Amino acid sequence: MTRGRFIAFEGGEGTGKSTQAKMLADTLAARGIDVELTREPGGTPGAEAIRGLLLDPPGEGWGARAEALLFAAARADHVARRIRPALEEGRWVVCDRFVDSSRAYQGSAGGLGDDAVRALHDIGSGGLHPDLAVLINVAPDVAATRLAARDAGRSDAIGGRDAAYHAEVAEAFRRFADADPAAFAVVEGAGTPQEVHARVLKMVEPLLRKAA
Amino acid sequence: MTRGRFIAFEGGEGTGKSTQAKMLADTLAARGIDVELTREPGGTPGAEAIRGLLLDPPGEGWGARAEALLFAAARADHVARRIRPALEEGRWVVCDRFVDSSRAYQGSAGGLGDDAVRALHDIGSGGLHPDLAVLINVAPDVAATRLAARDAGRSDAIGGRDAAYHAEVAEAFRRFADADPAAFAVVEGAGTPQEVHARVLKMVEPLLRKAA
Repeated sequence: MTRGRFIAFEGGEGTGKSTQAKMLADTLAARGIDVELTREPGGTPGAEAIRGLLLDPPGEGWGARAEALLFAAARADHVARRIRPALEEGRWVVCDRFVDSSRAYQGSAGGLGDDAVRALHDIGSGGLHPDLAVLINVAPDVAATRLAARDAGRSDAIGGRDAAYHAEVAEAFRRFADADPAAFAVVEGAGTPQEVHARVLKMVEPLLRKAA
Repeated sequence: MTRGRFIAFEGGEGTGKSTQAKMLADTLAARGIDVELTREPGGTPGAEAIRGLLLDPPGEGWGARAEALLFAAARADHVARRIRPALEEGRWVVCDRFVDSSRAYQGSAGGLGDDAVRALHDIGSGGLHPDLAVLINVAPDVAATRLAARDAGRSDAIGGRDAAYHAEVAEAFRRFADADPAAFAVVEGAGTPQEVHARVLKMVEPLLRKAA
């Protein structure tokens, strides 16, 4: 059996990742591909419980070290119980965020460092990487406008961090994509969801041809 | 100011660690030492929330990788928010379990390996080690009798694992102590709590003399 393909959507808050992940999964399914749409942190009962601790921390909030370990724990459960089994059974997996988010948020903006985040990923998830990471690139003012419209004041422990933190996250994603262009597809996030989806599909086409 | 001393109690289930940790903290306090008694997983609001996930897992239970990452996350919070500040302010810390439990349970019995557990501890807690790890050594049948009397059928996701798992935990602790006799004080756990406490105190005396 052919192994399934693994596509992750990456980017900061308000870039439209979740919308695009769902649109891609729907399009793949319409083409007859058996696909699972999932998200991080989360995707399994265990990882969703950890998500609750991450986004609404007890006590004083997590430091970068504990936060990175919790993300890696959630990812280990998600990979072992859902992502790897799906890929091995030939299903495709479309995931809203994966390890590059940990590299950008905890590793870069949180100051833990890229080597530490990669080491946690090796230990927790055997270093699994997506076949393609789709990085949606949106100007900071566009992201801020989308967030304000969507959240109506709602925020969580990570999304609610200051502008300097989120600027460093965006800059880190750009650095990762520049350093490893084969692993990332950078997609311009301006325009309607349908316009962005068309750009995403164009980047995913090579995987579809290889799978056919 | 003199840095405080850090003493961890280690051993399998039913060895009397928690009782001995409390007796030692009480004796130190009676001698005028400012001491904090704490436990793992737990000791801070964040780490206690992780403890809940570890001992009563959602879903199918944790694999060794996710479990080790959760223990390391809880420890990172505990070290950053409570243990290091206490030691730096000159207080002593007596802790019921620390990193050697992760080495024995997840690293050895769980099969993750000692290098991985040590790497997680370096990333999460800067590799902090106790000044002394007191390993309480109890024959398996004595531990089983104590557990049966205490728990009255109550068990958790880790304590409830099979006899082979717990035998490997006990064997791993003995290996660690043999390999690093300066770091461990092995105390015979047979007899009354007072008898065991007297043995523990004898091993702790050198730290008291150095601190005086």
